[in-house]
This record gives sequence, C-alpha cells and structure tokens, in this order.
Amino acid sequence: MKVGVLGAGQLGRMLALAGYPLGIDFVFLDPAPDPCAARLGRHIRAPYADDRALDELAGSVDVATMEFENIPADTIRDLSAVVPVFPSANALAVAQDRLLEKQLFRRLGIGTAEFASADGLAALEAFAEQGACIVKSRRFGYDGSRQWRIHRAADVADAWASIGETPLIVERLVKFEREISIIAVRGRGGDVSFYPIAENRHRDGILALSFSRPGDSMQRKAEDYARRILEELDYIGAMGVEYFQCGDELLANEFAPRVHNSGHWTIEGSVTSQFQNHLRAILGLPLGSCAPRGLSVMVNCIGRLPDRNRILEIPSAYLHVYNKEPRPGRKVGHVTYIADNPEAIERQASLIDSLCR
Amino acid sequence: MKVGVLGAGQLGRMLALAGYPLGIDFVFLDPAPDPCAARLGRHIRAPYADDRALDELAGSVDVATMEFENIPADTIRDLSAVVPVFPSANALAVAQDRLLEKQLFRRLGIGTAEFASADGLAALEAFAEQGACIVKSRRFGYDGSRQWRIHRAADVADAWASIGETPLIVERLVKFEREISIIAVRGRGGDVSFYPIAENRHRDGILALSFSRPGDSMQRKAEDYARRILEELDYIGAMGVEYFQCGDELLANEFAPRVHNSGHWTIEGSVTSQFQNHLRAILGLPLGSCAPRGLSVMVNCIGRLPDRNRILEIPSAYLHVYNKEPRPGRKVGHVTYIADNPEAIERQASLIDSLCR
Repeated sequence: MKVGVLGAGQLGRMLALAGYPLGIDFVFLDPAPDPCAARLGRHIRAPYADDRALDELAGSVDVATMEFENIPADTIRDLSAVVPVFPSANALAVAQDRLLEKQLFRRLGIGTAEFASADGLAALEAFAEQGACIVKSRRFGYDGSRQWRIHRAADVADAWASIGETPLIVERLVKFEREISIIAVRGRGGDVSFYPIAENRHRDGILALSFSRPGDSMQRKAEDYARRILEELDYIGAMGVEYFQCGDELLANEFAPRVHNSGHWTIEGSVTSQFQNHLRAILGLPLGSCAPRGLSVMVNCIGRLPDRNRILEIPSAYLHVYNKEPRPGRKVGHVTYIADNPEAIERQASLIDSLCR
Repeated sequence: MKVGVLGAGQLGRMLALAGYPLGIDFVFLDPAPDPCAARLGRHIRAPYADDRALDELAGSVDVATMEFENIPADTIRDLSAVVPVFPSANALAVAQDRLLEKQLFRRLGIGTAEFASADGLAALEAFAEQGACIVKSRRFGYDGSRQWRIHRAADVADAWASIGETPLIVERLVKFEREISIIAVRGRGGDVSFYPIAENRHRDGILALSFSRPGDSMQRKAEDYARRILEELDYIGAMGVEYFQCGDELLANEFAPRVHNSGHWTIEGSVTSQFQNHLRAILGLPLGSCAPRGLSVMVNCIGRLPDRNRILEIPSAYLHVYNKEPRPGRKVGHVTYIADNPEAIERQASLIDSLCR
C-alpha cells in the first residue's frame, strides 16, 4: 500500500511513523527543499498545483491525502479524478472558508458564536455596535494569524484600515469556560469513531497544551456535532473539531480536515493513534479503537526545543522532535505525558511546559 | 543526531521508527538491494566488511550499532577506531561463539546446561554417553539452525557424519518448565534497566510467541544474571538473554547483543520500547522507564502475513509488517496484543496465532 501526502511537515512525518508498521509506504509532495517528513518517504519537490508533480504522485500511490488544509481545493478536485483523495475537495473547500464553515455549522444545528460576513466598513460597524468581536480572514488563517479583535465600536475604523484584505468574517467574542476539541474519524464504509475530547490551552493564539479528558460531560455533545459534520460532508479520514464551552453549550469554532495538533497525545495515550486511524480510514481498513490508555497531556514546543535530557529523564514523558529549524511561533516538537491520576498530569504539565518555554 | 546501523532488516526498521521522534536520523549499511529498513533512512549498499562503505558510514554518523550479531567482530573493531560503536567488538565476539558465551556464563556464576567443546567424534561420544545432548555450531547459528539432537549414544556416529562442520559445542539436553528471556539495557554511564521477563514459546526452533510476565518470581534472578553479563562486558545498549527455567534455577542459553525478538512487545507494552532505549543507551541519553503498560503477548508472523483486516479488527492488537518478501521460516511481521487480564491475553494469543499460521 502506498499513500501520497500533500505536505511533508510534522503531520506527514507522524502519519508515516504510524503507517510503516502497517506496511504502508509514503510519497510526499511539498515545495520545501527539505521538509521534515521527506526522509520518511519519497519526496517530490514541487508546488502543490504543479500538474506534472501531481500526475507523478497520482501514478505512484493507491490513495492520496493532505496534511494541511490550504491546498487549493481545485488541485484536490483534479487529483481525485486520477486517484482517490480523502478528505474530499468539497470538505476541504468548506474548511478553507470560515464563512462557509460557520454557515455549515448553523445549517446542521451546531451552535456557533454570532457571525456575519464583513464585506465592508458599514457591515462591520453594525456588527461591532452589538458588542466586542473578532474579524478574521475567511481564508488561510492559522494559529491566530489574520485575526483582529475589536473591543469597542469606536475602534472599527482603525481596525478596518489596518486589515487591508478581504474576504472577511466577523464573529462575536464569547465568554467561554473552556476550549475543547474532538478528533473524529470516519472510514470509507461510513463507520465513525471518536477519541475522548481534549481540553486546550492557548498562548498567543497558538495551542500550548492539550489535556485528554476521557469521561468528560461534554463528550456526547462534541461527538454529536462532529458526527453531523462528518456525515454531511461524507467525510473520510480524521478530523479535528474545536469548540468553545459556554455553560452546557458548545459553540463550534472550526474544523480541521486532517489530523490535528490537539490529537497528538493519541500516539501514546490511546489504543490507536489519530495518525494510524486516519490512514486506516482513507485506505478502507477497519478503524482502530480510540479508547484512552491513561490520562494524557500534550505540551507543544513552540519556537524552541526543551533541554532533551530534562524531558527524557521524566518517566512516561514522550519527546517528539520534528527536525524543523526553530523559529519564533513555529511548532518544532511536542511532549506527551501519561499518568493515571489528574494531579500527576497537572503537575508534570506545568513542569514540561516550563521546560518548553 | 545520526545513528549508523549495520544491517537494515526489521530490527533496523523498528529502531528507526523509535528514533525519529527523538530527532535521530539513520544511515544503514546492508548488502541487500532493498532491505526493509532502507526506506527509513539512507542506505549504503555494500558488504559489511567493505572498507569504503564503512568509512562512509563512520564519516556520516555520531554513533554506530548493529541489528544482528554476525557482523565480523574485526569489522566492528576497525569501525570503532573511527566512530563510537555499541555494543563493542568484544561483546560481539563473545556472543558470536557459543563456547566463549557459555564459558563466560560459567565464569560469572550463571547457571548453564552442562556443555563441552565437541572437537571430534571421541569427545562427542564421551559426552553423549552421559545422556541426550544437542550439538550446535559454535558460530552463525540462528533460529535453531545448525543444531543436531543426539538422543542416544548409539546415534553419535551418524550425527557426526551429517554435521560436517566445526567448531562445535555440545550441550546437555535439559528438562525445563519454561523458556524465558529478559531484555536489559545499559547506558554509557553504566546505568542499567530491565524489562519484565518474557515467557517464550517456540515452534520448529523459531520463536512463535512471547508473553510479558511482569511480577514473575524469576524476574530477580533473570536480572541478576543479565547484570553480571552487562557489567563484565562493559556492555552498552539493549541485550536479550534467554534462559531455561528448571525449578527455581535459570540456565542461561544465550545472549543476543542487540534488541531482541522477545522484546518486540515493549513497543506498545512498555513505557519506553527496547528500540528507543537501545538508542538512548548508545547515544548517552537518559534511559527510559521499562515499566509495563498492561500485559502483552507478541505473536510472530513466520513465513506469511495474517489477513490484515482480521488483525486490525481486534481492539488492542497491533500489527507490524516488515515489508519483507514472505518465505518459509522467515519472520515477516508480528502482532502484539495488550490487555489487563491474563485470560484475555491467552485467548487472543491463540486466536492471533491461528490467524498467523
């Protein structure tokens, strides 16, 4: 079995590490000269929209997938005429556009923050008059980039001047208790599985820590919403859905049409990792159990790696280095820690987080 | 960090899969055209004793190791003049010669079956007169190959005629209750760690199943003996030691100067796998915990792979395919199953074993 992956970053790397034990080989398409997954498979170096490279990829794999969502949906549509590609161009197109995404949530009866298209200053002013809000680029945003907060209606004009791009969406800032996410996976036969939800803590708009929360009271609602999205899109593969929890309600923030940073803990913290389950799904293999193995916390290494030995000395801490050049704001690794009790998780999460900063 | 590995079979493959998360890259030296670890690193294709290839390997890695024990010890000695190599040529030389190995055990006060050098027909006859025995090539044997059983002294002459090679060792056949093994790992600082012992079942001289036995009454003795070997040889890396259990005594059969088939269950069944701990040891990194995660059984896939979907449908069964061409007697994969109770382990071991046969 050979899987083609568009993108060869850390997600591609972890897909490959999860796939080799099943006997899967990998071909990566990535424009970078030495992306970190390249040494784990064949690397076709070309722009994502390069027809010849796409033909080469399609001709050498059984199925194709992607490790990030900003591949042009048209590219995926063309590719899927030649080789099966999961998730589909259609799912990707929705995930790439925050307005389409939110409209989908709304249509499926999934709670969201109030939102509107922000086509011009007037529309934005009208929205901002009702309360604090956040303007986001409809496309290509990640890790809090291309977002502008507007706390008072008086600030709209200044904000508008500094944004200088369209199309935009504006969303109401909501007070929430927690940010949670769920990794769901749907196979080619329509079978669906869910991991325990993760509780996420961000720093500077970037995911910093994810705590697995097996048995959480919001599990069922998170699953229910995720299932609606999966089924509506006839989605195949792993998907991450992010929510804000407000009281007993979940407001869906976004979904990622791929394996997700808040699911990295599943490598050691669940029976089958999100990476292997994504591969099982797109290859039409039986899905593996998403059951947890203990409690987990994942700490992102952002901009720099921690002292390696300090991490390796912690029993049940798992270091994952991506072999990426450190740069501010860049995810260059993560550490997962597993324990049986929440106190140990909290304590080690703080320690590991301090070592990673 | 870059590790050079002599040999690129399944052990090299699993070393690489365990090493990438630590940010380690791999260079393999192997004479085969497409060995199964080759796609997980750079592959130098050359005979093990090829000076230019060894220079190339030495020049491109921080440390070298081997994934099988029949590399000429002189090759390792020469290589270690240029780059650190673990385990040492000395440890390898002992492991390569069943007589030196047994003499070492004896010298260290480790129980063994009665044995003698079998230099000629007369010596063999004298030994066989005292009871059933097994003649083994002192060198290059594996998986029960190059071994001849002699049940009656009258059979010696016939056996001798069919063996046709030297040097030989003859060992008394012993009645034993169990075959067990232990994976031990020793770091560059002399720190030693032990996994729970495994109970092994062979078929046609080839390891078929390994059951992890945390808390077993023979754990302490198995550790004690293994520690003596590690310290005597100033051994660095993972080592497998095989024993026969006779009552409360352990008779050491052999040690493997590398990661060991009876330790494959540690990938999912322990906090740190034998593969990652071997890498940690030879790189001078802190050793990881060898604590078990549940109970494990590993089933070898010998000569053929099981129906993939049948395995993947079993929750907590982990399929490992080596991407090797199936051939009779060849290890082409393994399946590990994890559970909390011994009954589930026994039941699933039988099922998985039947699927693998």
